Amino acid sequence: MEIEEIKVGDLQPEDFINQKVKEISSVVGDGFAINALSGGVDSSTVSMLGHRALGDKLRHIFIENGLMREGEPEQVASLFKSLGVEVEIVDAKEKFFDALKGITDPEEKREAITKTFYKDVFGKLVRESGAKHLLQGTILTDIDETVAGIKRQHNVFEQLGINPEETFGYKIIEPLVQLRKDGVRKVAEVLGLPESVYNRMPFPGPALSARIIGEVTPEKIKTVRLATSIVEDELAESSAFQYMAILHRDRVTGMRDGKRDYGLQIEVRCWDSVDCRTAKPTRLSHEVLERLADRITDEVPGVVSVTYNIAQKPPSTMEAV
Amino acid sequence: MEIEEIKVGDLQPEDFINQKVKEISSVVGDGFAINALSGGVDSSTVSMLGHRALGDKLRHIFIENGLMREGEPEQVASLFKSLGVEVEIVDAKEKFFDALKGITDPEEKREAITKTFYKDVFGKLVRESGAKHLLQGTILTDIDETVAGIKRQHNVFEQLGINPEETFGYKIIEPLVQLRKDGVRKVAEVLGLPESVYNRMPFPGPALSARIIGEVTPEKIKTVRLATSIVEDELAESSAFQYMAILHRDRVTGMRDGKRDYGLQIEVRCWDSVDCRTAKPTRLSHEVLERLADRITDEVPGVVSVTYNIAQKPPSTMEAV
Repeated sequence: MEIEEIKVGDLQPEDFINQKVKEISSVVGDGFAINALSGGVDSSTVSMLGHRALGDKLRHIFIENGLMREGEPEQVASLFKSLGVEVEIVDAKEKFFDALKGITDPEEKREAITKTFYKDVFGKLVRESGAKHLLQGTILTDIDETVAGIKRQHNVFEQLGINPEETFGYKIIEPLVQLRKDGVRKVAEVLGLPESVYNRMPFPGPALSARIIGEVTPEKIKTVRLATSIVEDELAESSAFQYMAILHRDRVTGMRDGKRDYGLQIEVRCWDSVDCRTAKPTRLSHEVLERLADRITDEVPGVVSVTYNIAQKPPSTMEAV
Repeated sequence: MEIEEIKVGDLQPEDFINQKVKEISSVVGDGFAINALSGGVDSSTVSMLGHRALGDKLRHIFIENGLMREGEPEQVASLFKSLGVEVEIVDAKEKFFDALKGITDPEEKREAITKTFYKDVFGKLVRESGAKHLLQGTILTDIDETVAGIKRQHNVFEQLGINPEETFGYKIIEPLVQLRKDGVRKVAEVLGLPESVYNRMPFPGPALSARIIGEVTPEKIKTVRLATSIVEDELAESSAFQYMAILHRDRVTGMRDGKRDYGLQIEVRCWDSVDCRTAKPTRLSHEVLERLADRITDEVPGVVSVTYNIAQKPPSTMEAV
């Protein structure tokens, strides 16, 4: 089925919201549903649409997969609480780390996360709750990238010939599939989400596991999480579209206290982009770049080298994994 | 034996040259010797000292190890020809690539090159020629770094308890061990070497194999050699101390013609330094950085990502391997 794109110039956010609320109500009917909330702009927007449509008939679930940024689960739950939406945090850390063990190929990594998320974790949750529908924030760009074979987005199934009902035991509702990021931001704002959400920087579905080259382990997540905090702290005022820290698998020779230290490298990427389809590295000042490198090598154990991405998308992509 | 450093401020280049010429003559005596010339400032300076001391009793040999930059063997031979010094190019490419096969650890890589160079290639050359001495351009920083265990420099033996005469079958003469790079540059200038030599950018002993993370193969050398040409071309006017391209082993996701391209990453490093002991990344303009990235991703097959080093030495080192 061809999806009809709604370009941001043609989008009437109020009409869109009313229509989607009606559609969700009618699809779910008298039953109830589960909402997969990650805290990003897409899933936050779906949460508010679902909340309007279904109220108490919708359970909002945040999966603590162990791959999120510092303090993220609590921040998301507390923000939604202030908007009158109760979020349940489900601890599934061990399941995700088990599924990721030994996997180094980026696409296999994404596949492992998808399976764990939809089949294992949500399959069980939906089955136990008796819900028949899962709401999620897939957008058109996710589908485009998956279909083109650039990156397997974790939330795309039909286009790959997967029937979620047969595979996972529930139907998936995707109210945002006709929009791209810029359209979603408009809808989010009109829905009353705070600017910290509707202008929130994109963050990948596989979370910090997309920021680790090679195998994902709890220790490596700790390293990249700390580097991510520093990058987000230092670049908060940059007004860039997206910024990130990537932990490389390659080790490089460094030195500490006059002795060899064969250590880790962190790559920083900071992008100027409108819609993720093309992007250029932000021209950060050298003062900022040097402070980033100094802080990361000082504060993140084991890191002896820091680089800054200078290639455009394409031929680069925004995330390295 | 403690080596007595001659600081650049205390160096009298003419006196130094006269003394070293005398020492070399007296050590080699009536015999003859072989000189290992790589074309760098250190080995070029030793070549001129040796030429003055020994004239035709010294054979100058450039080992074509397959790891040098584009056109390097021919350029070195032609430069020395113009100075009245005949250079023999010895093809040992296959020996070096065989020795490097399957090795990924930086120190094992350096060790394999050292063994091939001194034992296999020069051992044979010296034996066949009947020479008893090899001249080479070890400087004090090479010894410092090796003794501190930071990087095993290929030309350091005594300090590691290796007796070259027993191990390789010849004695090693090192006229520059009391100097650091800045002192060598002064001596080189007074010896009449052209500025392209006495101000030549440092280049590592293991050549381009020090610019490849992981296993060294002829194909990877080709990739990093091409990237090196672009970096040297674009940064020739930068007046930086040293600049380089490094080929990573990690692959990153990229895209070409709308399709996934899981490709290579090149890291560019450009350093401001006086003596290599500490160094800072040069504050290149964003125009230069972006042109570098565009050219490398356009011209070097397989490369989808380019980064620029932003960390200082220490805790980084100048070369990654």
